[in-house]
Amino acid sequence: MGRPFRARIGANESVFGPSPAAIEAMREAVADSWKYCDPENYDLNVALARHYGVEPSNIIVAEGADALLGYLVRMVVREDTPVVTSLGAYPTFTYHVAGYGGRLEFVPYREDREDTEALVERARMTGSPLIYLANPDNPMGSWSDAATIQRMIDSLPERTLLCLDEAYIEFAPEGTAPPIDVTNPRVIRLRTFSKAYGMAGARVGYCIAHTNLAAPFNRIRNHFGVSSISQAGALAALGDQEFIAKVQGWVAEARERIGSIAEANGLKPLPSATNFVAIDCGRDGVFAKAVVDELAARGVFVRMPFAAPQNRCIRVSAGKPEDLDALAAALPDALRAAAGGR
Amino acid sequence: MGRPFRARIGANESVFGPSPAAIEAMREAVADSWKYCDPENYDLNVALARHYGVEPSNIIVAEGADALLGYLVRMVVREDTPVVTSLGAYPTFTYHVAGYGGRLEFVPYREDREDTEALVERARMTGSPLIYLANPDNPMGSWSDAATIQRMIDSLPERTLLCLDEAYIEFAPEGTAPPIDVTNPRVIRLRTFSKAYGMAGARVGYCIAHTNLAAPFNRIRNHFGVSSISQAGALAALGDQEFIAKVQGWVAEARERIGSIAEANGLKPLPSATNFVAIDCGRDGVFAKAVVDELAARGVFVRMPFAAPQNRCIRVSAGKPEDLDALAAALPDALRAAAGGR
Repeated sequence: MGRPFRARIGANESVFGPSPAAIEAMREAVADSWKYCDPENYDLNVALARHYGVEPSNIIVAEGADALLGYLVRMVVREDTPVVTSLGAYPTFTYHVAGYGGRLEFVPYREDREDTEALVERARMTGSPLIYLANPDNPMGSWSDAATIQRMIDSLPERTLLCLDEAYIEFAPEGTAPPIDVTNPRVIRLRTFSKAYGMAGARVGYCIAHTNLAAPFNRIRNHFGVSSISQAGALAALGDQEFIAKVQGWVAEARERIGSIAEANGLKPLPSATNFVAIDCGRDGVFAKAVVDELAARGVFVRMPFAAPQNRCIRVSAGKPEDLDALAAALPDALRAAAGGR
Repeated sequence: MGRPFRARIGANESVFGPSPAAIEAMREAVADSWKYCDPENYDLNVALARHYGVEPSNIIVAEGADALLGYLVRMVVREDTPVVTSLGAYPTFTYHVAGYGGRLEFVPYREDREDTEALVERARMTGSPLIYLANPDNPMGSWSDAATIQRMIDSLPERTLLCLDEAYIEFAPEGTAPPIDVTNPRVIRLRTFSKAYGMAGARVGYCIAHTNLAAPFNRIRNHFGVSSISQAGALAALGDQEFIAKVQGWVAEARERIGSIAEANGLKPLPSATNFVAIDCGRDGVFAKAVVDELAARGVFVRMPFAAPQNRCIRVSAGKPEDLDALAAALPDALRAAAGGR
């Protein structure tokens, strides 16, 4: 539209930015960017291993969780390999599966949650070697508790791998993530510096897994994929857990506020364990799309789920108070316009 | 060894760093790295297209030339596909070919140059869909002139694609690169910000090709692979061609100096069109390896070709005067020690 948005609260970025320590570390790393980056991501790898109480060989760092999804799919998926995911879940995973010729087996959400039992059942039925589950979930913000996920893990068919995407885990209540168990060779945990750590533009993701599962990534990954600046930033960001605690507080406040704004407009905010809130607009995807468009026309960037019935919702990322002021100001008019009342 | 090198002149990095404009642009971009980067690399793509007088659809930007090599190989290579390259050429290309199950067809160097005619002949003989050629060449620094490369292009078998890696082209004499012709669907030119632009750690490479060859990259690449900071840096670096001219001058001086140091020690520097010089140590790979190790023990990091007979050489990257002072100081002792004289 030729002008910046007044509120950029559509991409589940962290408007609260990276830790000041990370910003400083990245600025300092810039002048040395003539040197090749460390292909082992050594310092970050060791720091992550320490953070999680695992070995460095249990961690693979890469140029964003998206890259790791691509590598994982490359290793597991051949022409016509069945791969199980939820209908309307993270599309970059399905992009990679389609790219490697896999056959997507979509399981519907159940009451706006990914259906852990049905996912396992579908894998069993189709002989799928790979299930993708995001917990907490994007785009709905819903989650299963650790016990439910652990039951899912324990019930995996013998030859099935679970890719457990925990990009939003830092925003979830205690008791959402099952304990990290790198002795289990059938679970790969995926995490990122793009969400709570506020570094989406820096491209750093990592997985935590059994050594036998982690090691093969080294045989195919783009070894120099993570820029030296980003490695330095992620290392500093990880070291500043006080900042993450602050971000968690700000996000919790923002979720509350988004909920209040939704309710004040007669809409229903769904519970969220992420840095965004799905708001049920009470009608269909056509209407929700109109709301998204009308908000954009008023300078407020939000998004929406793409599959029915989740697409009755719009998805609003945690913003700063001024971002949410803009949402509060724009939403009544946007809803009226979307309803055809201009 | 627990201490930094005195001279880091082994990885063909640019010790002269990125343009001050690029450094400034990257520093400024840091604070905004909470935003996802532009998956289209739009500004950089458009600037590169303008720089080369082609359309944006002829350019694909990615997280380093290494990533582009991986994507290209993925698109072309299946189990047992023959792929032609020179024995001892850039190993990351062969890594990708091996990773996708291709069969490497190695053509020997001829008088320390990649043998353009033999490469084409081998492709014809084996029915290979892909030839990789670096011009100028790494690790020898040798090159073919534009007329030779154009003859090679004109003689390509009908179903063979030439990946022409021009990572070092900015250091080559006028008349080394054939004209860029994006109407030819069988040539893909690969370039980088890692060498002359001094941004190896930032991870930005690109290819220039016919639209029909460029477009498929968009169906498989990691769309958010290039960090927002690196995109900003590359854009500013491209805009500062005065700085590139300076780098070219500094590199030419450094090549001269490396040549003099080699000759003063009774060794033979090979002609170079790159930012490094291969120095013929006059014996075999075992001796050259000993020279590399003895230099490292004296704080000077250099490398060497890995295949015979090129591995009679050591490879020294252009350094600043103080780096080359360190080389000049260490080389006599290193040679003596390598020759067994302690």
